[in-house]
Amino acid sequence: MLLPTATFAARFLDEDAANNNFHIAGAQKQQEPPRRRKAMAKGLLTADAARSLVGSVDAFLFDCDGVIWKGDELIQGVPETLELLRKLGKKLVFVTNNSRKSRRQYSKKFKTLGLEVTEEEIFTSSFAAAMFLKLNNFSPEKKVYVVGEDGILDELKLAGFECFGGPEDGKKNIMLEANFYFDHDKSVGAVVVGLDQYFNYYKMQYASLCIRENPGCLFIATNRDPTGHMTSAQEWPGAGTMVAAVSCSVQKEPIVVGKPSSFLMDFLLKSFNLETSRMCMVGDRLDTDILFGQNTGCKTLLVLSGVTTLPELQDASNTIHPDLYTNSVHDLVKLLQQ
Amino acid sequence: MLLPTATFAARFLDEDAANNNFHIAGAQKQQEPPRRRKAMAKGLLTADAARSLVGSVDAFLFDCDGVIWKGDELIQGVPETLELLRKLGKKLVFVTNNSRKSRRQYSKKFKTLGLEVTEEEIFTSSFAAAMFLKLNNFSPEKKVYVVGEDGILDELKLAGFECFGGPEDGKKNIMLEANFYFDHDKSVGAVVVGLDQYFNYYKMQYASLCIRENPGCLFIATNRDPTGHMTSAQEWPGAGTMVAAVSCSVQKEPIVVGKPSSFLMDFLLKSFNLETSRMCMVGDRLDTDILFGQNTGCKTLLVLSGVTTLPELQDASNTIHPDLYTNSVHDLVKLLQQ
Repeated sequence: MLLPTATFAARFLDEDAANNNFHIAGAQKQQEPPRRRKAMAKGLLTADAARSLVGSVDAFLFDCDGVIWKGDELIQGVPETLELLRKLGKKLVFVTNNSRKSRRQYSKKFKTLGLEVTEEEIFTSSFAAAMFLKLNNFSPEKKVYVVGEDGILDELKLAGFECFGGPEDGKKNIMLEANFYFDHDKSVGAVVVGLDQYFNYYKMQYASLCIRENPGCLFIATNRDPTGHMTSAQEWPGAGTMVAAVSCSVQKEPIVVGKPSSFLMDFLLKSFNLETSRMCMVGDRLDTDILFGQNTGCKTLLVLSGVTTLPELQDASNTIHPDLYTNSVHDLVKLLQQ
Repeated sequence: MLLPTATFAARFLDEDAANNNFHIAGAQKQQEPPRRRKAMAKGLLTADAARSLVGSVDAFLFDCDGVIWKGDELIQGVPETLELLRKLGKKLVFVTNNSRKSRRQYSKKFKTLGLEVTEEEIFTSSFAAAMFLKLNNFSPEKKVYVVGEDGILDELKLAGFECFGGPEDGKKNIMLEANFYFDHDKSVGAVVVGLDQYFNYYKMQYASLCIRENPGCLFIATNRDPTGHMTSAQEWPGAGTMVAAVSCSVQKEPIVVGKPSSFLMDFLLKSFNLETSRMCMVGDRLDTDILFGQNTGCKTLLVLSGVTTLPELQDASNTIHPDLYTNSVHDLVKLLQQ
């Protein structure tokens, strides 16, 4: 893998010494006009549109939850779709905001579901958090406190960082009594917050103390998805809920490294020899997947197999419109074979 | 106590049948100009200003955390201050956003600290939540789910409502596995969210399911304080952090019944024969106490014995200015005795 240079890394982070606020180019791009928009008919994926789409892109970026699977259940037609696209010579990349697993763990999950996907084809928000610290020369003498699960801890360790927190701190309780003083490690230089089913008051306070009291401590969010299909049966609170709680406590906004921030895309472009105008982002969520695709200049395809419903897409209040939409990725195969 | 009439209650709640959003007059008033502002010099409390203040008000409303105590530690000079004001014939009211205790429990806390304060003089955000439901004729056939502590459960039960959740659900864990389906009680008609040291993923999902799936289910926040002096040693995440997490999950704003919403004040005015222009709100927090005083037309006195520092008060970015400020309530006595 081609690792970005220090110059590239420097683009992402400008320290404002006066107020300890950090800015990343990727995050700022969320508010900017898209790099490039294709003049493509916006609407339902038809056989013609499917042929045109496949003919005009070299790579497909797939979100996972709600697109490839729901919880641990594969969405119908996914194996055939991926197989066909690979046969057509398309590069496949899997970009997920779900930080619960590392790239290695995701590769195993794909295998369990009968799909052959390598670690190098997987970009998770947990990996993005580790890469963000690496690209910004995070001091190896500092530690990282994690509000999240094993995926974040694993990726941070793989990248050579000392980290703690995670599921272990989910077992710890706070007793708010009298003169109780809660101490924290002053050598924590970054707090990473992601989806955490072991979220508790202990972690909220630990993260808050590090961010508020350790000079220059970074506050990094893997992503801000409000909900997600953590199980196939229903939606669950997403990483956005943990991020909202910590952000409220410290009264500061985090640096977001997952979708729709373009940090991951810039990193991905440096890893592969690709052009965003010849990529299509396929996702089930408007405010992360489709916005991410648009922010980075990709074509966008919304699938209705996850959190977004057709009435939500077509509601007058919705301002995010994908180039194309369809029920599920399976439609791509069906339409191409017509 | 004079209980508000149904007509009064009706002012607080208008159901928008189309989208199940509720509005309260109190909450809306946060954005409106203050009812009445006194032409009073804004600045440090001097002996003259203290005499003028005491001469022009009939009642003092005190916040508790950071004004009367810090955690379980009484702030210096509080007994003398309250004693003097009572001798001067002033009505004393204690208005706290801390929902962890009921009015009965707070009365006991005052007694433990050597202060004689009756339940009727105490207005908590937990009591406000119960009164909000009562005033809005919440059906006794519906249940209330509580993300919070015993104070909320106790006040709801005293008001005759069936409720559950609270500390008990803090012991329950979620295992996000495969086809796990999390069921919830369809008869929950309101979710109350307040400060909760037992906050966890179970409660976040339970609250989210009730608000999202039970038709017309109310989403009530006791308050949105980001932090508070839950112990005397340091600040801790406040109810605002739990509210932010649930609000993010359900993508909906709550009805706030504590400060700075004027719901509590309107209720208080109906309970006592008082005029807000002859009241002074004494608090340590600009965005709740002082804003609450200003929203309701009271005079305002900021004390620097809690979360707000003098640099924060005087910072150019601060838009909330109390009529007067001083180090602690003790200064009132010292200045009046000069």
